Amino acid sequence: MDEKNIKVLMARRPSGWVRETDFQIVEEPLPEIGDGQFLVRNRYLSLDPYMRSRMNDAKSYARSVAPGEVMVGETVGKVVASRHPGFPVGCAVLTKFGWQLYGIDDGTLSTPVEDLGLPLPAQLGIVGMPGVTAYVGLFDVAQPKSGETVVVSAAAGAVGSVVGQLARLHGCRAIGIAGGPEKCRYVVDELGFDACVDYKAGNVAQALARAAPDGIDVCFENVGGEIFDTVLAQLNPFSRIALCGMVSQYNAAELYGTKNLRSLLTNRVRLQGFIIFDHQDRWPVARAALAQAVREGRIRYRETVAQGIRSAPAAFIGMLKGQNLGKQLVKLD
Amino acid sequence: MDEKNIKVLMARRPSGWVRETDFQIVEEPLPEIGDGQFLVRNRYLSLDPYMRSRMNDAKSYARSVAPGEVMVGETVGKVVASRHPGFPVGCAVLTKFGWQLYGIDDGTLSTPVEDLGLPLPAQLGIVGMPGVTAYVGLFDVAQPKSGETVVVSAAAGAVGSVVGQLARLHGCRAIGIAGGPEKCRYVVDELGFDACVDYKAGNVAQALARAAPDGIDVCFENVGGEIFDTVLAQLNPFSRIALCGMVSQYNAAELYGTKNLRSLLTNRVRLQGFIIFDHQDRWPVARAALAQAVREGRIRYRETVAQGIRSAPAAFIGMLKGQNLGKQLVKLD
Repeated sequence: MDEKNIKVLMARRPSGWVRETDFQIVEEPLPEIGDGQFLVRNRYLSLDPYMRSRMNDAKSYARSVAPGEVMVGETVGKVVASRHPGFPVGCAVLTKFGWQLYGIDDGTLSTPVEDLGLPLPAQLGIVGMPGVTAYVGLFDVAQPKSGETVVVSAAAGAVGSVVGQLARLHGCRAIGIAGGPEKCRYVVDELGFDACVDYKAGNVAQALARAAPDGIDVCFENVGGEIFDTVLAQLNPFSRIALCGMVSQYNAAELYGTKNLRSLLTNRVRLQGFIIFDHQDRWPVARAALAQAVREGRIRYRETVAQGIRSAPAAFIGMLKGQNLGKQLVKLD
Repeated sequence: MDEKNIKVLMARRPSGWVRETDFQIVEEPLPEIGDGQFLVRNRYLSLDPYMRSRMNDAKSYARSVAPGEVMVGETVGKVVASRHPGFPVGCAVLTKFGWQLYGIDDGTLSTPVEDLGLPLPAQLGIVGMPGVTAYVGLFDVAQPKSGETVVVSAAAGAVGSVVGQLARLHGCRAIGIAGGPEKCRYVVDELGFDACVDYKAGNVAQALARAAPDGIDVCFENVGGEIFDTVLAQLNPFSRIALCGMVSQYNAAELYGTKNLRSLLTNRVRLQGFIIFDHQDRWPVARAALAQAVREGRIRYRETVAQGIRSAPAAFIGMLKGQNLGKQLVKLD
């Protein structure tokens, strides 16, 4: 067992693009556990775009991280010392300790991992928050019908990659939007989307119109900004938008001004912003469905894994810049 | 009886602000009616913001007016000659002949006016399309709960004035947004809204925050643009937007870029664009409820009436500039 805990704090609130110097890595002695407590050694840390929002002081659905506090985030790990009967030593747990190697809990921040026949880090990705976000956002929020065209941005990411595959399994035409030829090849060749628009190749409007010649019925939006504006202009009557993220705006020094909102009116669009943590009742169903689809080979996923907790800030910044394929994790060796 | 029909054509598509020279007024002989037809003399023409959209060539929910065609619009009038048993001479009808004194029909474009105990022009306003838009948009689309704060833009207009009154009757706090002190006084003193923000007085954000100190639960949007952007920033979690119009954008040379869309995500907002003509099944209920509330003095309305069909273009432009109070009509003497 390590002798020290290592944790990543938010040192200061970022202004514009987050930088490694906005974080501080500190070591501290391991705490003693008391009666009814247990100590968890985290093994994988999940890095997700929403964390960037938590670094701001702005009003949002969840409390901000304050300067000097540990960065928020989900981890999977194992219990290494316990005085709690429900969490014996060796028990695999999903925790909310944030960006650190160890955490002490009385059961408030941890859940025993349900065996879904998948490797432990899948609990943070394909059957974790991103997978459930894709499932609930697509089926509960956007509600596509078989035969409709579904467009998803950040299509090579942890959420987008699942959205398109679920849409295909549901009988929809799945169009991804992603940055660069490598991601687009991954989305089409490996994940089986019908097409993928490379927004870095220019003329997104034309490429999108070619990929979705019958217009767009469902938009699963992760990015916002100019690409979303382009999608708006190609929506069909009675289309639906599941607004899941706006990662293009999280680091923006100046907010993008969206021009095509009138399409929401003329096409009688339903747009619904959603946060997966509001939908706790749907997690079991979504997790079970995703796990089965993965086990049967009908849904694929990839993970991009950074090594060691000290790499978390750089990996986080890389993810916000779109350098990952699939789920971004940090292996906490 | 006049010997000639007078009609207003769209002479050319406007570019930016519509001008009187974009219209052409022509006279023509009255046509003869055939078997199964009847001739209607229109008495009032309704002028509505949506008509500006129909002057554009852009893709919308309805066909554009082509240059040289009669402007679209609803009218009320009376049958003056008939060879149709369902529409005898003297029958009052609601028609879709557009901007002209006379029209011939076989029953396709006309509906006999139901007696709701109100003057004929009310069929174009408070119990017509604008009133029904307010009713359906508020109750079916936005679905406010008693005690919530409802904000409506263009609050002194034909739709907005009804939205706020209905919201008050429903137990909501009703906040209007309108241009100038006269309109704001009308909205508060005569219509009974809880407050009205004068967007021409500057610092709309501050005035809105003062008028809606607990935040905004429902936005009934008629205007779009910068004011809508300001409203977005003050939405509460789980608020709803009924997107009914974007009149600020209909004549804009350059579209406004809306910056605060992220509020739709963080507050899990449901935005629904709607067009009242999609909700035909709700018209009878809405009309009956509105007529009763008017007869009982619980809802008030005003009409701004231009005189003579030749005044229609100027009155239409004035309405788009917000010069009317309540429903804008043209009396077709």
